[in-house]
Amino acid sequence: MAIGKESLEQVFRAGSPRWRTSITRVEPNRIVTRGYSQEDLIGGVSFSEMVYLLIRGELPPQNVARMLEAVLVSFCDHGVTPPSTQAARMIASAGSPVHACIAGGLLAFGKNHAGAIERSMKLFQETVSSCESEDEIPDAALRLVDDHLQANRRIPGFGHRYHNADPRAVRLLELAEDYGCVGPHTSLALEVQEILLERKGVRMNVDGANAGILSDMGFDWRTGAGVFMIGRLPGLISHVYEEKVREPAFRKFFEIEEIQYDGEEERDLSAGADLEPMPE
Amino acid sequence: MAIGKESLEQVFRAGSPRWRTSITRVEPNRIVTRGYSQEDLIGGVSFSEMVYLLIRGELPPQNVARMLEAVLVSFCDHGVTPPSTQAARMIASAGSPVHACIAGGLLAFGKNHAGAIERSMKLFQETVSSCESEDEIPDAALRLVDDHLQANRRIPGFGHRYHNADPRAVRLLELAEDYGCVGPHTSLALEVQEILLERKGVRMNVDGANAGILSDMGFDWRTGAGVFMIGRLPGLISHVYEEKVREPAFRKFFEIEEIQYDGEEERDLSAGADLEPMPE
Amino acid sequence: MAIGKESLEQVFRAGSPRWRTSITRVEPNRIVTRGYSQEDLIGGVSFSEMVYLLIRGELPPQNVARMLEAVLVSFCDHGVTPPSTQAARMIASAGSPVHACIAGGLLAFGKNHAGAIERSMKLFQETVSSCESEDEIPDAALRLVDDHLQANRRIPGFGHRYHNADPRAVRLLELAEDYGCVGPHTSLALEVQEILLERKGVRMNVDGANAGILSDMGFDWRTGAGVFMIGRLPGLISHVYEEKVREPAFRKFFEIEEIQYDGEEERDLSAGADLEPMPE
Amino acid sequence: MAIGKESLEQVFRAGSPRWRTSITRVEPNRIVTRGYSQEDLIGGVSFSEMVYLLIRGELPPQNVARMLEAVLVSFCDHGVTPPSTQAARMIASAGSPVHACIAGGLLAFGKNHAGAIERSMKLFQETVSSCESEDEIPDAALRLVDDHLQANRRIPGFGHRYHNADPRAVRLLELAEDYGCVGPHTSLALEVQEILLERKGVRMNVDGANAGILSDMGFDWRTGAGVFMIGRLPGLISHVYEEKVREPAFRKFFEIEEIQYDGEEERDLSAGADLEPMPE
Repeated sequence: MAIGKESLEQVFRAGSPRWRTSITRVEPNRIVTRGYSQEDLIGGVSFSEMVYLLIRGELPPQNVARMLEAVLVSFCDHGVTPPSTQAARMIASAGSPVHACIAGGLLAFGKNHAGAIERSMKLFQETVSSCESEDEIPDAALRLVDDHLQANRRIPGFGHRYHNADPRAVRLLELAEDYGCVGPHTSLALEVQEILLERKGVRMNVDGANAGILSDMGFDWRTGAGVFMIGRLPGLISHVYEEKVREPAFRKFFEIEEIQYDGEEERDLSAGADLEPMPE
Repeated sequence: MAIGKESLEQVFRAGSPRWRTSITRVEPNRIVTRGYSQEDLIGGVSFSEMVYLLIRGELPPQNVARMLEAVLVSFCDHGVTPPSTQAARMIASAGSPVHACIAGGLLAFGKNHAGAIERSMKLFQETVSSCESEDEIPDAALRLVDDHLQANRRIPGFGHRYHNADPRAVRLLELAEDYGCVGPHTSLALEVQEILLERKGVRMNVDGANAGILSDMGFDWRTGAGVFMIGRLPGLISHVYEEKVREPAFRKFFEIEEIQYDGEEERDLSAGADLEPMPE
Repeated sequence: MAIGKESLEQVFRAGSPRWRTSITRVEPNRIVTRGYSQEDLIGGVSFSEMVYLLIRGELPPQNVARMLEAVLVSFCDHGVTPPSTQAARMIASAGSPVHACIAGGLLAFGKNHAGAIERSMKLFQETVSSCESEDEIPDAALRLVDDHLQANRRIPGFGHRYHNADPRAVRLLELAEDYGCVGPHTSLALEVQEILLERKGVRMNVDGANAGILSDMGFDWRTGAGVFMIGRLPGLISHVYEEKVREPAFRKFFEIEEIQYDGEEERDLSAGADLEPMPE
Repeated sequence: MAIGKESLEQVFRAGSPRWRTSITRVEPNRIVTRGYSQEDLIGGVSFSEMVYLLIRGELPPQNVARMLEAVLVSFCDHGVTPPSTQAARMIASAGSPVHACIAGGLLAFGKNHAGAIERSMKLFQETVSSCESEDEIPDAALRLVDDHLQANRRIPGFGHRYHNADPRAVRLLELAEDYGCVGPHTSLALEVQEILLERKGVRMNVDGANAGILSDMGFDWRTGAGVFMIGRLPGLISHVYEEKVREPAFRKFFEIEEIQYDGEEERDLSAGADLEPMPE
C-alpha cells in the first residue's frame, strides 16, 4: 500500500502538524532560538544564560545568571560514589561508545538519586503556593517537618549518606544571599533546616539548596533533574574517559568469591515441572 | 557460600583496588575535584572552566574559557530536526521519566550525528601530528582533501544537510580569531574549507569549526562527542519538557496510511516451515 | 588514600555482602540457575519454560509453558507504529551500534506504551485480592468499570488506537480457554470487557488479555513490562537490522517545511536581559 | 510557518515514503508479520520460530527451531558477574523504572561483552566465505589461529574469564550434532578449538559455539548480539526484580574507604589559571 494523495490530503485536513516547537526555528543558514539568532547568542551569552533561555524561554537578569552558573558547578562530580558514575564506567569497561556510556549513567538518575531534587522542588513549590504571604512560611515549614516525621518519611533535600554538613549546600546558600537570589522557596528550605537540625541533627544537602534556589529562579520542578544532568555531565564524561584510557578493558569489578549465592539447593531436571498444572 | 575472611584477604593481597580515580576525592564534609575544594569552585569558576578542569585536569587561561563558553553555546539546539531530539520527544510521549528521555536522545548521538565531531577531531589531530611544522599544514590540507575526494568519502565537519553556510561555524571562527584561539588545527580546518569551497562549493559546519577549536585547546578527540553532549543537553531538556506539557500523550507521529508495506504476500501457516531442513 | 586492611575488616564486620543473588550460582565450569545446572537446561527446557523459571523461580506445568509461549509470540511486532520501534530506527539511522538502538527503543516503553500491561496487571491483581471468592468477581468488575467511567479514566488493557477488536486478544483468550489457563484474573478481564463493550463499544486489547493470563500464571505485576520486552525484542532487532541494511544513513524522517514554529518573534540581544532582577 | 499544501505536495512528489517496512503490515483489526497473520502465529509457532521468522524472514525447519531454542536458553543468565547485570541492578537501586534498568543493562553489551559473539560470527562468516569448499576449512582454521597468535590478538569466542571449559559450549555442540545442525561455520569453530587447545590450552566459550551454530542457521553476524539480547533478557529482568524487592534502595555497592584517590595534591584557586594563555 503506497502512500497516496488521498492519505496526504487527509493529513492536511486534519490540520495538526506532527512536529511543532516554540524553541528553535531552523531555516537554511539561519537558526533562531527563543527569538534570538544563534549567531548573536554565540559569544553573546554565557552558557548559564543559554540554559536559562532554553528552559525558561527568557534571558535571565545578571544576578540570576551568576547564581545559575554556581548551581551548575555545584552538581559537577562526586567521585565514583554515585551509581550513575559506576554504571557509566562499567558500560565503558564493556566497550560501548562514549554516548552509550553517558546514556547508561543518566539512566541511574532515578527517584533515589537525581530524583531527589525534583521531589524537593515539588515539595517547596507546592508548600509556597499554599501560603498566601511570606509570613506564613515559618508555619508551613513546621507543618512540613511534622507531617514527614509523623509519617516516618525522609524530607527530600535533607541529609546525605556521606556528609553530615554538605559543603556544597553551605556555599550555595552563602552565594544566594550574596547575589540577592533568596526568595520564598529558599527561605522555606532554611526554615526546614533549622527545625530539622534541632530535632534530628540533619542539614540541607546540595539537592535541597539547589531545589530552593532553582525554584526561586522560576524553574518548574519537572525541569530540576534536567538541570542536575547538565551540571553532572562533564563529570560523567571525565569518568568515562578515565575508565577508557586508564583501566584494563572488561575488568572485574569484584571477585566471584565475594558473591553470596542463597538460592535453591540443586535440583534434578528429569523430575519434571516444579509446579502442578493450574486447576481448572 | 558466604563472603569469607579468606576471600577478602585475597582481594587485599591482590592489591588492585576495584575503584580508583584521579578526578574527585570524597571525604565526609569535603569534596576535592582536580585538587580544588568544591567550596572554592562553586562561585569561583564559570561552568566552562569547570568543564575544562574536569575533562582536561587543569583550569584554562581566560581566553580559552571564553572560547569554550561560545563552543558550548553553539551546540545548544537545532530545533526538532535532529534524530536525537525526535527520539527524546517520542520517548517522552510514551510516558517515560525525563532522565530516560534524555538518555534515549543521547543514544542517537551515533557516528552519523555527534560522531561527526569526533571523526573530525581525530582527522585534524592525526594530520597536525604528522606535520613537523605549521608550514606543512597547507600541503597536508591538500592531501587530506585529495584523499577523501578520490575515495569518494565525505570529510567530517564539512557540509550540512540544511545549511549551505552554517551560521554557527562562521561566528565561531570569528570568535576564535578575536580571542586568540586559532592554533594549527583550526588553521588546517580553514585551509581545508578553502580548497573544498573552490572545488565543491562546500563549507565548514559547526562540528568542523568546533573540532578545530577544541583540538587547539588540547581536547583529545575521544572527548569531542562529550563536549557536544554538554552543549546540547539544555536543548534536549527543553524539548522533552515542551513535549510533556504541550502535546497529547502517546500521540501519533504519523498516520498508518503513510506507511508503505512492501513485505511478503500473505502466506498460510498450515503449509509448514518455509525452509528445507539443513542438509546433513 | 590506598585501600587499607582496616577498611576491609570493617566491610567484613558489617557482614552484608555487596552482591548476593538467588538466581544463578557461578563456579568455574559450573553454572546453576534456580537449582538446575545450565547443562541440563540447554536442550532440556523450552525458552518459555526458561523465562518462567528465571522470573518465577520454578518450572511451569506443561499447559502454562504452552500458554506463555503464545503470550510471548503475541507481543512480537506491531510494524513501525509504536514509538519504541520509531525511536530504535532513528537511533540506528544516526549510526549507533545495535545494542544502543535496542536500549533506546526500550526506553520508549513508558507508562503510555508497555506500561499499560503493568497497570492492567496491578488493577486486576488488586481487584482479585479484594474478593473473598470468585463469586464476587462480577460485582468487582462492575465497580471497577463504574469507578473508571465516573472518574473519566481509561481502563488499562482496553481499547486500541488502531484496532477496534484487537485480533491478538481474541486469539489469546481462545487459547487460554483451550489450554485450561483461565483463572480469576482472566475471568475478571472478561467480565470487564462485557460491561465495557455494552456501554462504550470498547474491547480488550493485547495488553489486557495478557495482563489477565500472566496474572493467573502468578506473575507479579512488576514483571509484566519485562515479559512484554522479551516478546517484543525480536521485532525491535528485526527493525533495527532493516533500517541499517536498507535505508540511507542519517535520513530525514520529515522535511523542514513540515515543522511548525510557533515561538517568539525575533528579538535583539543587545537589548539586554528579558527579565527584571529578582526583587530583594 | 504552518504546514502548507505546497510542502505536502513536495513530499508527495519526492515519492519516498518516510516509513516503509517489510516486516509487519498493520491494518485495523489485522496484523500480518512476514506474510503470516498474527492470529495464526499466536499458538501456531513457538517463540524460537517467531525469532527466526522475524529476523530471517522465513519459518525454520523443525531441527533448526529446536536448536535455536537451545541457543536462546544458553544465553539466559550468568549471575551477577557480567557488567550488564551489575549496571541494571545499580540503575534499579537508584529507583528507575524497569524498562530504564533493562535499557541500561543492555548498554553494557559493548564490544567486550555481547560484542564478542558478533566479532566471532563475522570472523567465521568471512573465513568460510573465503573457502571454495569445506575441504579447505582445516587449513583456513590454521591460518586464522596463526594470524591471531602472531598479532597477539585473542580469537573472539574462545577462552572465558571464569570457565576453563565453558559447560554451555560443550552442551551446545553436542546438541548441534544431535539435531543435525553442524555446518561449515561450526566445523571451523571446532577446528580452531582443536588447534587452540593444543597450543594454548584454550577452549570455545558459549559465544564461540553460538557464533558457529547461528552462522550455520544463516544469521548475518550483525544480528548476533541481538539474539544474545533476546536470550539474556529474562535473566536481566529477574535480576532487576530481585534488586527491587529484596535489597535496600540506593544501597552502597562499596564503601568510601575502598576507593583509591590518586589525583592532584590540593591546590589553591586564588592562584589563578593552571595553564598559560595560548600563544598567538
